[in-house]
Amino acid sequence: MAKVGIVMGSDSDMPVMAKAADILEELGIEYDMRIISAHREPDEFFEYAKTAEEKGFKVIIAGAGMAAHLPGMCAAIFPMPVIGIPMHTTSLGGRDSLYSIVQMPTGIPVATVAINGGANAGILAAKILATGDAELLEKLKKYTASLKDGVVAKDARLQEVGYKNY
Amino acid sequence: MAKVGIVMGSDSDMPVMAKAADILEELGIEYDMRIISAHREPDEFFEYAKTAEEKGFKVIIAGAGMAAHLPGMCAAIFPMPVIGIPMHTTSLGGRDSLYSIVQMPTGIPVATVAINGGANAGILAAKILATGDAELLEKLKKYTASLKDGVVAKDARLQEVGYKNY
Amino acid sequence: MAKVGIVMGSDSDMPVMAKAADILEELGIEYDMRIISAHREPDEFFEYAKTAEEKGFKVIIAGAGMAAHLPGMCAAIFPMPVIGIPMHTTSLGGRDSLYSIVQMPTGIPVATVAINGGANAGILAAKILATGDAELLEKLKKYTASLKDGVVAKDARLQEVGYKNY
Amino acid sequence: MAKVGIVMGSDSDMPVMAKAADILEELGIEYDMRIISAHREPDEFFEYAKTAEEKGFKVIIAGAGMAAHLPGMCAAIFPMPVIGIPMHTTSLGGRDSLYSIVQMPTGIPVATVAINGGANAGILAAKILATGDAELLEKLKKYTASLKDGVVAKDARLQEVGYKNY
Amino acid sequence: MAKVGIVMGSDSDMPVMAKAADILEELGIEYDMRIISAHREPDEFFEYAKTAEEKGFKVIIAGAGMAAHLPGMCAAIFPMPVIGIPMHTTSLGGRDSLYSIVQMPTGIPVATVAINGGANAGILAAKILATGDAELLEKLKKYTASLKDGVVAKDARLQEVGYKNY
Amino acid sequence: MAKVGIVMGSDSDMPVMAKAADILEELGIEYDMRIISAHREPDEFFEYAKTAEEKGFKVIIAGAGMAAHLPGMCAAIFPMPVIGIPMHTTSLGGRDSLYSIVQMPTGIPVATVAINGGANAGILAAKILATGDAELLEKLKKYTASLKDGVVAKDARLQEVGYKNY
Amino acid sequence: MAKVGIVMGSDSDMPVMAKAADILEELGIEYDMRIISAHREPDEFFEYAKTAEEKGFKVIIAGAGMAAHLPGMCAAIFPMPVIGIPMHTTSLGGRDSLYSIVQMPTGIPVATVAINGGANAGILAAKILATGDAELLEKLKKYTASLKDGVVAKDARLQEVGYKNY
Amino acid sequence: MAKVGIVMGSDSDMPVMAKAADILEELGIEYDMRIISAHREPDEFFEYAKTAEEKGFKVIIAGAGMAAHLPGMCAAIFPMPVIGIPMHTTSLGGRDSLYSIVQMPTGIPVATVAINGGANAGILAAKILATGDAELLEKLKKYTASLKDGVVAKDARLQEVGYKNY
Repeated sequence: MAKVGIVMGSDSDMPVMAKAADILEELGIEYDMRIISAHREPDEFFEYAKTAEEKGFKVIIAGAGMAAHLPGMCAAIFPMPVIGIPMHTTSLGGRDSLYSIVQMPTGIPVATVAINGGANAGILAAKILATGDAELLEKLKKYTASLKDGVVAKDARLQEVGYKNY
Repeated sequence: MAKVGIVMGSDSDMPVMAKAADILEELGIEYDMRIISAHREPDEFFEYAKTAEEKGFKVIIAGAGMAAHLPGMCAAIFPMPVIGIPMHTTSLGGRDSLYSIVQMPTGIPVATVAINGGANAGILAAKILATGDAELLEKLKKYTASLKDGVVAKDARLQEVGYKNY
Repeated sequence: MAKVGIVMGSDSDMPVMAKAADILEELGIEYDMRIISAHREPDEFFEYAKTAEEKGFKVIIAGAGMAAHLPGMCAAIFPMPVIGIPMHTTSLGGRDSLYSIVQMPTGIPVATVAINGGANAGILAAKILATGDAELLEKLKKYTASLKDGVVAKDARLQEVGYKNY
Repeated sequence: MAKVGIVMGSDSDMPVMAKAADILEELGIEYDMRIISAHREPDEFFEYAKTAEEKGFKVIIAGAGMAAHLPGMCAAIFPMPVIGIPMHTTSLGGRDSLYSIVQMPTGIPVATVAINGGANAGILAAKILATGDAELLEKLKKYTASLKDGVVAKDARLQEVGYKNY
Repeated sequence: MAKVGIVMGSDSDMPVMAKAADILEELGIEYDMRIISAHREPDEFFEYAKTAEEKGFKVIIAGAGMAAHLPGMCAAIFPMPVIGIPMHTTSLGGRDSLYSIVQMPTGIPVATVAINGGANAGILAAKILATGDAELLEKLKKYTASLKDGVVAKDARLQEVGYKNY
Repeated sequence: MAKVGIVMGSDSDMPVMAKAADILEELGIEYDMRIISAHREPDEFFEYAKTAEEKGFKVIIAGAGMAAHLPGMCAAIFPMPVIGIPMHTTSLGGRDSLYSIVQMPTGIPVATVAINGGANAGILAAKILATGDAELLEKLKKYTASLKDGVVAKDARLQEVGYKNY
Repeated sequence: MAKVGIVMGSDSDMPVMAKAADILEELGIEYDMRIISAHREPDEFFEYAKTAEEKGFKVIIAGAGMAAHLPGMCAAIFPMPVIGIPMHTTSLGGRDSLYSIVQMPTGIPVATVAINGGANAGILAAKILATGDAELLEKLKKYTASLKDGVVAKDARLQEVGYKNY
Repeated sequence: MAKVGIVMGSDSDMPVMAKAADILEELGIEYDMRIISAHREPDEFFEYAKTAEEKGFKVIIAGAGMAAHLPGMCAAIFPMPVIGIPMHTTSLGGRDSLYSIVQMPTGIPVATVAINGGANAGILAAKILATGDAELLEKLKKYTASLKDGVVAKDARLQEVGYKNY
């Protein structure tokens, strides 16, 4: 049963949202991915958000751009954490998406990650689930260790070949 | 029967929203004013937006600050024009409200006015109704003429007393 | 007789303005499209704005970029709604256009849509006319339903092929 | 045993951080509050972050202003969720704090809430814990219901006295 | 006969515009000061701008805030230099005014000074007139010398009393 | 003898500065164009600015990007008008250049034009010289009329072929 | 003999610049403080910057606001480090000062500190001198330790009295 | 023995950091270049920063993008100057990096250079070392003279061929 719902309002957000799904797959976390628009199909959206708890979701990852209402409206209905991913936008660089997602009023937080931060949304969802799942916590620690190994390898190569040949 | 719905998510927006109501009263347009939060009571909000047409509303004026979702969510449900008023905010000066209201995706426009532009929202609602109401159009022209008179009077005083005594 | 005037100051704005015209055509609304510059031919502009009402316009859609004065000057003269489209700009991303259009002083509102929001300007014009035209309102509801269908179809495809093959 | 660590780099952040603690107290969640600076006492900070898991913390709430490094450095060390609160700043309104907290690189997310969003940080921490605590989830639903009741009461008063007497 | 026209759209701009007039008086340059709104009385505005040349104006100083169209519309009509003063605004700090004034399209420049830069507008007008007036140029050089004297006196005081007693 | 000095700090600014020269050539105004850096050769710069008046310059057009000091330092030395052109920049879009040029302190104005506004700088220089040169003023009026003709021609073509074939 | 020159263009910058001087005094570093304007007295400024090396300065701390040219012009002339302090400004919050100081072209760096960062400019000057002065380095380490002690004391008080009584 | 440490958190910063190394090589200053991430390997980072002084570093040049914590965390540990290079970012243009680096709290300055200012970071490091190294100071003066020669040559070419053939 999916523990994480991934939802986006438009398939133009797919490349970013896919990175969240990739991480969840890598960590063995079941998820459900949907394209549902709070603006273009409000009834479907409401149904989705209202049934999320009974579907077994513990976390929702919602991505949106411009006047990005999807994460905030999820958070207004779903009682557990909603993670918001602000999409990069051509004109305002994603500031519009970021402000629309992060500046939520008191009572209705959205856990906001970086602009286009799909992978980090997936990791944050895993960290949330790991608060009650020791096995997942170990996987996350290994993932973090692998990040370190990547940097160490790059530095080793730099020491070997020098910056001019890097 | 009210032709204009005025709605705000928090009574902290009242001083700005009141200016919209003042204009409508001045122009003899019936309105209905509500405090309803899309974030804190999504069911009530949905009910409000879905029944707006049958209540006879032709225009909704919605004010909101920060991650200002109220106008956009009204526009997702109500089929006639929604006017959005971005509230001034302490930290971002209202840019957050403005972007959250104006940057709507294709298909769901919100007619956005200036930050804290309560009076202009009222005037815009009247202009919309005046597209089908010749009498109201005349009233609007008189209102506009009165704006001119106000400037002319100030200029006359300046010519009389000079800028040092103005 | 055209009910909507579409006006731009430069033909570089055409790709965005064309989207407004496309929507109006789709909804069967007559319009008149002009290239008139408030800055480069102020007399012609004044003539245009002053005769707009007698030409039968109920709404003007004006697009402009940078120090975008065209929508605001229309609103200073034409007594019914003016919809402003802020154009994207290379250096400031359209913030200059947006602020120049939306931040109008009390008494002279411009109904502002998103940066490069040509289609939404057309839809908003239709929504305004629909306040007095039940047939058009039905068309708009069908248009909105078609937006929903588009999202539903994309979601169905996602459920079928999965995000990796989307 | 405290499940939530609250940490700030300076006691000037106390009024905002106190709101997070208030919420946790209201919901019966044990917390530990500290003033520790990543910049002024990096050793103490490292010790704090490294021992957070063994102290039983499931979530850390970190507030910081300007070049706000505290939340991100917590997230680099602590394996479970870190919630970041960007402090309002005089010169840049909190944009500096917000960008420094939310724009984390891949691998190290910080769950960012609104500028000065102390209460929402507390609520988000509770929502995270509620993914594994049905009783807490019920308390959160009651809290959310109380938010609705507050809005309903305000609207009732508005309907009773009208906006001019509100 | 006035060589400089000073015009503002609202008497709320008077404190800033007065500084321009003060400088012109100090330098012995005749000016004409008016309150005329391009938005609220477009006909009066057009008349003003069109007759400016025959009234003998060589320069117009126009101040405006928010969607500040007055300087740009002057520049569209008056064939000699127009100096624009962007007014400080509460929500956007004057960025809106600045962008609306400085970002003019090719062919219609506005000589823009700093936000609230009333005195500098007056000085710039004088510098423009001084291109053809040797006596005025001398006065300007004396004015500039007096600016230097002011700084020298402050530095002398600092050297005398030290910064702690300054 | 050159009446207008055109100066830039780097030849990367040439494409924009060339547009100013083009306009001056078109209007028959003699100019002198130099590449001189206030930062990289302050002595040469000082010599340039100090001798500008005796060389017969009536106006200096200075273009600069990023921390754009060249226009302001010209204005600190040259007693007649300095026109500043803020260059577009990759990271900040030219906001850095714009603020560095327009936000001059009291006493030292720079007549600022739009970001990358080379042509407008040339036109503004011509307008300044035209305050004392009736023949040049006539040329400017013809130039302005040609701008109008260009727009009229585009509109005529639109009316003829329609927007879909434009 | 003064090793650090402190210079500001206006005595309105004194409260911020005084903090730099306070730190230098606390660390026993001799300094010379001047009010000299690059804009209002360019000759005096040039003389100041050109003689700074022979006066024995190793570092210059320059503060400026708005179109803040003073630090950059110092860096164009003085061959050793120049530290720039961007002043807070009413309209743009100090962004104008910051961009004008930090965005220097290749070859002419200014070591920029935070908006209104007077104390940090003093500390940075000391750190620069400490690269060749072991005794000063020890003093700096003690200063840093005292910062830590301040935070520790605040945390101790928090643990003692709790946040509600803090 | 290396006097300058160059450190970046990711090899994507290499093109900018390489320019700092190029300058140091050109001026004959030994340096040590590392890829070390404060976020992905905090223990390695701490070890690096804590041993920097004993390795003989007098200056650290740290580059970082987005929530750029690396320079500030270096400055929290290393007692001598840290130079921060804010990296350009796709969404926010480097404002996020700039604010995260320059807006450091009192006590912990980072000497910030321009966005992507790799070469200037190298020059600033050299200027810092030159405060105690007369020979290096001479080299720097020659470097600065070469910058001037470059501009002079470009101007000579412009005078020879004219701007149309430049």
